[in-house]
Amino acid sequence: MKIQILMGSSSDMPVAEKAKTILEEFGVPYDIKVASAHRTPAVLQSIVEKSDADLFIGIAGLSAALPGTIAAHTIKPVIGVPVSGKVNLDAILSIIQMPPGIPVGAVGLDRGENAALLAVEILAVRDMKLSKKLHDYRKKMRKKALSK
Amino acid sequence: MKIQILMGSSSDMPVAEKAKTILEEFGVPYDIKVASAHRTPAVLQSIVEKSDADLFIGIAGLSAALPGTIAAHTIKPVIGVPVSGKVNLDAILSIIQMPPGIPVGAVGLDRGENAALLAVEILAVRDMKLSKKLHDYRKKMRKKALSK
Amino acid sequence: MKIQILMGSSSDMPVAEKAKTILEEFGVPYDIKVASAHRTPAVLQSIVEKSDADLFIGIAGLSAALPGTIAAHTIKPVIGVPVSGKVNLDAILSIIQMPPGIPVGAVGLDRGENAALLAVEILAVRDMKLSKKLHDYRKKMRKKALSK
Amino acid sequence: MKIQILMGSSSDMPVAEKAKTILEEFGVPYDIKVASAHRTPAVLQSIVEKSDADLFIGIAGLSAALPGTIAAHTIKPVIGVPVSGKVNLDAILSIIQMPPGIPVGAVGLDRGENAALLAVEILAVRDMKLSKKLHDYRKKMRKKALSK
Amino acid sequence: MKIQILMGSSSDMPVAEKAKTILEEFGVPYDIKVASAHRTPAVLQSIVEKSDADLFIGIAGLSAALPGTIAAHTIKPVIGVPVSGKVNLDAILSIIQMPPGIPVGAVGLDRGENAALLAVEILAVRDMKLSKKLHDYRKKMRKKALSK
Amino acid sequence: MKIQILMGSSSDMPVAEKAKTILEEFGVPYDIKVASAHRTPAVLQSIVEKSDADLFIGIAGLSAALPGTIAAHTIKPVIGVPVSGKVNLDAILSIIQMPPGIPVGAVGLDRGENAALLAVEILAVRDMKLSKKLHDYRKKMRKKALSK
Amino acid sequence: MKIQILMGSSSDMPVAEKAKTILEEFGVPYDIKVASAHRTPAVLQSIVEKSDADLFIGIAGLSAALPGTIAAHTIKPVIGVPVSGKVNLDAILSIIQMPPGIPVGAVGLDRGENAALLAVEILAVRDMKLSKKLHDYRKKMRKKALSK
Amino acid sequence: MKIQILMGSSSDMPVAEKAKTILEEFGVPYDIKVASAHRTPAVLQSIVEKSDADLFIGIAGLSAALPGTIAAHTIKPVIGVPVSGKVNLDAILSIIQMPPGIPVGAVGLDRGENAALLAVEILAVRDMKLSKKLHDYRKKMRKKALSK
Repeated sequence: MKIQILMGSSSDMPVAEKAKTILEEFGVPYDIKVASAHRTPAVLQSIVEKSDADLFIGIAGLSAALPGTIAAHTIKPVIGVPVSGKVNLDAILSIIQMPPGIPVGAVGLDRGENAALLAVEILAVRDMKLSKKLHDYRKKMRKKALSK
Repeated sequence: MKIQILMGSSSDMPVAEKAKTILEEFGVPYDIKVASAHRTPAVLQSIVEKSDADLFIGIAGLSAALPGTIAAHTIKPVIGVPVSGKVNLDAILSIIQMPPGIPVGAVGLDRGENAALLAVEILAVRDMKLSKKLHDYRKKMRKKALSK
Repeated sequence: MKIQILMGSSSDMPVAEKAKTILEEFGVPYDIKVASAHRTPAVLQSIVEKSDADLFIGIAGLSAALPGTIAAHTIKPVIGVPVSGKVNLDAILSIIQMPPGIPVGAVGLDRGENAALLAVEILAVRDMKLSKKLHDYRKKMRKKALSK
Repeated sequence: MKIQILMGSSSDMPVAEKAKTILEEFGVPYDIKVASAHRTPAVLQSIVEKSDADLFIGIAGLSAALPGTIAAHTIKPVIGVPVSGKVNLDAILSIIQMPPGIPVGAVGLDRGENAALLAVEILAVRDMKLSKKLHDYRKKMRKKALSK
Repeated sequence: MKIQILMGSSSDMPVAEKAKTILEEFGVPYDIKVASAHRTPAVLQSIVEKSDADLFIGIAGLSAALPGTIAAHTIKPVIGVPVSGKVNLDAILSIIQMPPGIPVGAVGLDRGENAALLAVEILAVRDMKLSKKLHDYRKKMRKKALSK
Repeated sequence: MKIQILMGSSSDMPVAEKAKTILEEFGVPYDIKVASAHRTPAVLQSIVEKSDADLFIGIAGLSAALPGTIAAHTIKPVIGVPVSGKVNLDAILSIIQMPPGIPVGAVGLDRGENAALLAVEILAVRDMKLSKKLHDYRKKMRKKALSK
Repeated sequence: MKIQILMGSSSDMPVAEKAKTILEEFGVPYDIKVASAHRTPAVLQSIVEKSDADLFIGIAGLSAALPGTIAAHTIKPVIGVPVSGKVNLDAILSIIQMPPGIPVGAVGLDRGENAALLAVEILAVRDMKLSKKLHDYRKKMRKKALSK
Repeated sequence: MKIQILMGSSSDMPVAEKAKTILEEFGVPYDIKVASAHRTPAVLQSIVEKSDADLFIGIAGLSAALPGTIAAHTIKPVIGVPVSGKVNLDAILSIIQMPPGIPVGAVGLDRGENAALLAVEILAVRDMKLSKKLHDYRKKMRKKALSK
């Protein structure tokens, strides 16, 4: 069980950090790499094809082709995270508006934590322990929200 | 193994049909129901909480609260499909811009087929047969694309 | 006579404060709580269903499902306030584009004061004293605007 | 008890008809007039100031100043309905983005029926019979939604 | 010969200042007042109807009804200036998208100087001296642009 | 006294026709030509520089540089009319967002009639007869609006 | 001398046809293929890497990763053409908002003819005959524009 | 071999600097001038028509007519760079949405470096040395990206 996080640029790290924090909290192994759909396509393809990860999280801004390009090279689930910038609709629409046949599941702008949570939910479909942890996480989150 | 498809309105059926076609092609059991986050919230909550589905697909237009509301009631993966209308950015942004803690994986406008494919990919993470079928589907899709 | 203000997150407090100031000026009793459509749906539903408030004000950003979810659980008037963020059109469109049958009256981005004033206007429909206060408030507002 | 519906142009009638249908179903008296904030401002002002209506519904497209202008002349609640056209964001933003002090409660694009339902909810705050009718309407709506 | 500048709020003064600077440079008499289409509609109407100005400049943000409301009360030319805020498309579209019959000439976001220059151009149609000054201004502007 | 109407393409004629109808109703002489800022810049410049028109109306869609280019070659007032297409915000923003120093007064999408009315208002600033006609036109418009 | 036109889908053919017509008029050899960045990435990469074309035209809609992916595999100039659909800003922003280092020159929505003309201009930089043809084409275009 | 960079305003220099850095790295001669399509159209036309440059880069914000106006005066390739401001979609759409017949190749918001790289790619079509340098630049860029 492993999650591969890929960022289009090292400047996307703050968003990746949010994912990291969640995955560590759930004890889900992960790996983070920078690999750009535009600048290092061969490296990206190689990482995706050789990976033994169960799913991928692609984090990118601007014309954010990264999640879609990952999806083009794998049949594993791909979660896309648009990163905020000067336009924002560019990254959101680039990631969500995939053509028929190659799905990406897009989460909100800069929502690295939700990408990680969705990843954990996906792994938990066949993993009772993880499923239990998710239930506990929700409870804790609710308590915290209500204590305010 | 089962997928629960929920539509906000019966008028969303053409988008649900695209998902249906894919799930039948992959032999993945599914159920389709109309349940609105706004008009029938109790029914929606009951369906989600009692469901033994492995994941949910929520299809809705306008202020498309359905996928997010499903996600509020389950820790199973939720895939959201925005349905086109007069504004389009309303459904896209309502579904993708979820707050931290409650993830939804959004696919493109009217992309019922991609929601289903992402669902199959998720179920295939621990299912070699389904994984094999996905590889075959990709190959077939490529052949078809190239024959044109 | 009472108004129930609900915020999707404690970070929405600055917008709620604007509403609070107005309601105190008019001497209208109110209660403020944090209750998220996504994180604490059961608590939200319980608050709404048990409430003896005459109307609700829902304040939320991003995919702002809060006002619509309140409206799903009550036939009391619901006023929605979109909260500003990185996209803004997300909260505006999520709140205003409600489907037929479940109305929300949306005010402008971060306009907590207008939500409160609209609430007071609604209560004043059958309350001569409150109606008188509204007339006085308008007069005062005009004088202040003109003195500049 | 009366509701005054105002349209910016006679071409907005299809949206007003949706409001009419709802108000007739609830037995709430109403009046419909064409009065433009731009073409017939004096007539509009006169109608609003002389009106004995409990609340106003303003229906307009493009640079939809009508609901805001009604609100400028009354302290009664004003509900605004943006009408669809070639841009749509023009009417939505013109109606919702009111300045502090003069509130308008905006419903969705072409949502005449929701304007009427919100109006009925407002009148029902102090009217048990109307409140009962709203509960029945919701129940009926739910049954209809579920029967599909 | 006189120009009447109206601002929806005293916070629009920085944009009005840009207009002022131009009008003083051209020696065109002007008057600046705060008058809101929403907060002080009677005062606004009175100023417009009693004015002996040759044209009006309306400066406003958000749901910027001011220029259109001025135009509703006069057949003199009206120039509208949208003021920047959190959304920007709100003021731009509210001012430009006027219905048929009541024209407003809209200049760019925060472009008080262009409103004043357009006003001077309008007055210069029948004023050779002003026309000469405009030619000189253009020349000076070109020199300044090229000297950089 | 003359108005020069320029269209970026012969396909903009339906919008120009609306202007024509108004100018003929007011008895204001005009000339209509096709001249593109992009395809025939020299012809456009020559028309503008040699013209004895009192003001210009530029009608264009897409990246609608026409009104701004006219304004670059004259100190006469320039009114810009964005023409609708697949995007609409392109023509609206291209025409309204002029840089400081070169003003264009923009009217709404496809609003040829408003361009003509604004032109007549501008000419009427120093023309009592035209001013009288405008008052009559408004009265007639109001009657027509109210008779519906 | 050769131009390689690539379409993301066979449904983009009408836009490619516009490019074809221009290239045939200029006698520039070209080849048209369907190759999707998402569905057939290996085929796309192979075509680009083995190509002896002087430049590439990528035509795609939705999350239009095609032109950027071509650019990732070549240092030849790449021209991108967004194809219209339900959102339009998706394809426009996906193609234009490329990250630093991997340029794409984007032309307008559905503007296959402009992609071809830009391609011819690029080839004409070192080709006097083609340059001459472009001058003639412009002249003819001007004549045609003015004859209307 | 020369590239002519034109800026609409001296405030666009930071974007031009990015282009400059690239062109110097590649040893491609260039010239930078300020010339506005709106403020100094004659100077702009003269620069373009007298230029012996092989291609043009036009950098401009707001209603960014500069690249399109350059293209109107030359058959050399024109690259357009939208400059960021308060709206952003204004410059992006003004530059990309050119009418048929007059192409501009648009790069991303503030992407001066990509404009320069695209220019170098264009010159490299018939220049083996430059082509070699581009390959080396890509390699270096990849190494740098991967070393992070």
